[in-house]
Amino acid sequence: MKNYKPKKRLNASEYIKGILSGDRVILSRAITVIESNLENDKILSKKIIQEILPKSGNSIRIGITGVPGVGKSTFIEVFGKYLIEQGHKVAVLSIDPSSQRSKGSILGDKTRMEELANLENAYIRPSASGDTLGGVANKTGETMLLCEAAGYDVILIETVGVGQSETAVHGMTDFFLLLMLSGAGDELQGIKRGIMEMADLIVINKADGDNVKKTELSKREFENALHLFPGLPNGWTPKVLTASALYSKGLIDIWTTIEEFITLTKGNGFFKKHRNEQSLGILKEGIEQGLTSGFFRSKAIKPLIEQYEQQILNAEINPYEAAQLLLSEYFEELKKRK
Amino acid sequence: MKNYKPKKRLNASEYIKGILSGDRVILSRAITVIESNLENDKILSKKIIQEILPKSGNSIRIGITGVPGVGKSTFIEVFGKYLIEQGHKVAVLSIDPSSQRSKGSILGDKTRMEELANLENAYIRPSASGDTLGGVANKTGETMLLCEAAGYDVILIETVGVGQSETAVHGMTDFFLLLMLSGAGDELQGIKRGIMEMADLIVINKADGDNVKKTELSKREFENALHLFPGLPNGWTPKVLTASALYSKGLIDIWTTIEEFITLTKGNGFFKKHRNEQSLGILKEGIEQGLTSGFFRSKAIKPLIEQYEQQILNAEINPYEAAQLLLSEYFEELKKRK
Repeated sequence: MKNYKPKKRLNASEYIKGILSGDRVILSRAITVIESNLENDKILSKKIIQEILPKSGNSIRIGITGVPGVGKSTFIEVFGKYLIEQGHKVAVLSIDPSSQRSKGSILGDKTRMEELANLENAYIRPSASGDTLGGVANKTGETMLLCEAAGYDVILIETVGVGQSETAVHGMTDFFLLLMLSGAGDELQGIKRGIMEMADLIVINKADGDNVKKTELSKREFENALHLFPGLPNGWTPKVLTASALYSKGLIDIWTTIEEFITLTKGNGFFKKHRNEQSLGILKEGIEQGLTSGFFRSKAIKPLIEQYEQQILNAEINPYEAAQLLLSEYFEELKKRK
Repeated sequence: MKNYKPKKRLNASEYIKGILSGDRVILSRAITVIESNLENDKILSKKIIQEILPKSGNSIRIGITGVPGVGKSTFIEVFGKYLIEQGHKVAVLSIDPSSQRSKGSILGDKTRMEELANLENAYIRPSASGDTLGGVANKTGETMLLCEAAGYDVILIETVGVGQSETAVHGMTDFFLLLMLSGAGDELQGIKRGIMEMADLIVINKADGDNVKKTELSKREFENALHLFPGLPNGWTPKVLTASALYSKGLIDIWTTIEEFITLTKGNGFFKKHRNEQSLGILKEGIEQGLTSGFFRSKAIKPLIEQYEQQILNAEINPYEAAQLLLSEYFEELKKRK
């Protein structure tokens, strides 16, 4: 069966067959096609996704974030292994717009999770590379669909916890897990404002050794803080748990909490509703991104933008009006294009 | 001097002269020109803003939000009166996209702040009406410039505290004040997630009578919660104060806190930096809004959007691809336009 040469080009139905049969090598190659910017690959990619789409969606999509140093890799490794022991198939994806494979990205380092990567039912894929967060996130979203079609029923999407990518991950997952450290204060400086409010679950990691008491204290502090946030429309009350990834402690409680969340939201209809909203949100955002990048990349407009920006900073023009003028210029320019 | 007939149309220089001399009647009429969608008024409006722009900016811009029932009107009225007693000129504007003047909006009711409105150095203007939050916010932003040119040195921009308008207000003010009630919990249900993290100051209102003890408790709870948030790049640590608008208690502390904030951020350069970022942000957002509304209003595209949305919900097409297809259609359509 697998006697193709590595470089041989497969056709769409070979990719689809391979993905649906759970072949990890073909899955990897299909993802490479999706990530490619070559015109031929784009056409092929559309065919593949179109066909596997009805087989996608049957997973629990979990977003995981936390600042560097929180122990995210170790956590994902042991949590992934735990889930596989429970009979799940686990894919680990990541969104890291700063990632550049050739330079060795933080998230792109496969050897990081060697034990997990070697398991039959695990699939780890580093972040797509790309100029824009939107582009990177889109590729990860499509990769997720392929992984689901390949039978992975838990998708962990990680992000570095320092920028905009959390919002993108939050927009494509069912459940958002924020990893934290005890001793709230300085450690949080790296977390962007607003991220804590996205969390369905905060896990305070490194609850081991001398640290146990501190994490319990932090747990109560975070619980008090979450208590001040408004309730979620899906009826879920965000939880705080402690864990030690190093000693594989607290994993059962985390998974039980996620299962409770899924049971609740599937029961009250919010799971499906949320997925639908996310899909329509992706459409809307894709359109907005496309429109905006078309504008800001326009060669005719670029020098004008800089000129207006300077005038705005000099209080020579008001930004509301400048926006209108730039838009008029742009639409005039579009009409002239052949 | 003021013997013009109410309906007589002024020219740009009459408006400008009136505004700069602090004439409230002419200021009001100029704002009406800005809010108008008639082509002639748009041209006139540009001229007016262009001329007054160098005279704008010299105010402290304060955003105020809080859910209905928190006592926002009463607070703004007594706070405004206090500021006027201190020698300030105070303008109260509002952003409420749901406002429809004819139906009597929550924020549009001038009689609400009758005492303040009757003071010589106060100017109260209800929310502009409009279909989109962006449009309403833009009008308010331009109105703010006019008020500044008319000599108002404190601008209070209020919002209803239940939607997206907080972000718009946050994007055009120097300082963001969140009014809260004691007994954190149910009362907060109405506040959108993420708004607490925008606050430079939380004021717990209705600290009077039997409520004093409860507000002190809430104050500590909020202080603990804010402590968990990451620090702000401008060096400011958000504060929590209690107040009783009904008994004019706590106003001095609030104003002192705002002055401390202004002194700090003017000293470390963040005040100017923040204003510049806001101006460029308004430009960028204006462009994005213009592009997006152009797309979604396109008659040729509208039925296609609905069609694709249905296909997405049926898992017949993936939203990433649908966005690309819709964009291609739109740009083709634009070229065809005369």
